[in-house]
Amino acid sequence: MYLIIDVGNTRVKAAVFEIDTLKEIVVFGKQEIISELKKITSKYLIENSIVSSVASFTNKEQQEIKELLQPLFLNSKTNIPFKNKYKTPKTLGVDRIALASAAVKKYPRKNVLVVDAGTCITYDFITKEGVYLGGAISLGIQMRYKALHTFTAKLPLLELEEFEKLIGNDTNSSIHSGVINGVSNEIEGIIKQYQEKYSDLTIVLTGGDTYFLSKQLKSVIFAHPNFVLEGLHTILIHNLAND
Amino acid sequence: MYLIIDVGNTRVKAAVFEIDTLKEIVVFGKQEIISELKKITSKYLIENSIVSSVASFTNKEQQEIKELLQPLFLNSKTNIPFKNKYKTPKTLGVDRIALASAAVKKYPRKNVLVVDAGTCITYDFITKEGVYLGGAISLGIQMRYKALHTFTAKLPLLELEEFEKLIGNDTNSSIHSGVINGVSNEIEGIIKQYQEKYSDLTIVLTGGDTYFLSKQLKSVIFAHPNFVLEGLHTILIHNLAND
Repeated sequence: MYLIIDVGNTRVKAAVFEIDTLKEIVVFGKQEIISELKKITSKYLIENSIVSSVASFTNKEQQEIKELLQPLFLNSKTNIPFKNKYKTPKTLGVDRIALASAAVKKYPRKNVLVVDAGTCITYDFITKEGVYLGGAISLGIQMRYKALHTFTAKLPLLELEEFEKLIGNDTNSSIHSGVINGVSNEIEGIIKQYQEKYSDLTIVLTGGDTYFLSKQLKSVIFAHPNFVLEGLHTILIHNLAND
Repeated sequence: MYLIIDVGNTRVKAAVFEIDTLKEIVVFGKQEIISELKKITSKYLIENSIVSSVASFTNKEQQEIKELLQPLFLNSKTNIPFKNKYKTPKTLGVDRIALASAAVKKYPRKNVLVVDAGTCITYDFITKEGVYLGGAISLGIQMRYKALHTFTAKLPLLELEEFEKLIGNDTNSSIHSGVINGVSNEIEGIIKQYQEKYSDLTIVLTGGDTYFLSKQLKSVIFAHPNFVLEGLHTILIHNLAND
């Protein structure tokens, strides 16, 4: 069994794979990482594991994870299954490395644009030759609501909700229209820009807002809510094969 | 001569009109409002004036402005030259009231979408019958850069610059691509949504980012950087005529 651990700023996703099959995903707070990982290792016979983290660990946490799992810690020096043409590969986030890895595994010999809609919306483009070129970083849905409230004097803090109108007729519906139609048109427009440059483009949508956005977008997309986890699994297998 | 005063959160724009012609715009900090208005009234013979403010005045400021100009203070009870179908007219911002007023004056008997790109990007739609229906509130360009930095651990604070690429290949160019292509595609997409619903749509672009965005957008737009001031002038004339 493989254990894939994706550590965000506040929460952790841990996925157990049996060869290529995702068996279980567990989500927990970063503080509980050691106790939760112990539960997983007592339930499953974990042979290999990978840790990807956007946050940093305390020395104690790092030591305990090492003793428990002897995992591969993903960083900019890890072997990856694609050619990285990012100008500053050391600054390419681990999430984006994972997404590109999943893209070349799932859609080999395809031009792939991965749209990851979470805290940020990241765009990552991989050519059909398996070359990662880069992409873009924009604001996630929740971040947009938060910014409109934080950086103005009078606008309220709203949360994402189902909203289908174009024309808002009070403050709240104006904000929902601006955020939701704004994000949808941004993603659709950027997809079109890539399609104009790269024929036969495969579009993957992932991240926490996958489900919401997959209903909004008109473009043909493949929804993979766990594409980061799948990519980390791909990197782990790639490194085991190259050992 | 008419004096039009548009008070924002930190700065004030004062415009002098001779009948319909804009003679001069002065921009100054909110703290200097009394001394600057005195300079203007000593230079021009101001007969009528209007004050629109998103910020509040101290009692002393309010009193001094009254003594100096006896202006019309724009609020939700002021007579306006369009029919307001906003569900909560009291919460419609004074800027958006001004924009709708300018739209019916400049483009009578047209469906008009006003895109005001400042701190926020607001969308305001007025039908060819002169009925204001509402619109949307989204994030301005600078706010997007600020949010990406403020609400993430690792992204730097960038400022708007000329940027033409689709695919960013380092952190900075990824952020520029996300913000600039994001905003451009958002605006283009929302314009198209209005065009699908309302034929013969006139599109006005205004606000601090007018110049930058007018180069980015492919849609046919009319750029009016001072549409709020023109709208306040329209409201003033409308109220003088109705006296």
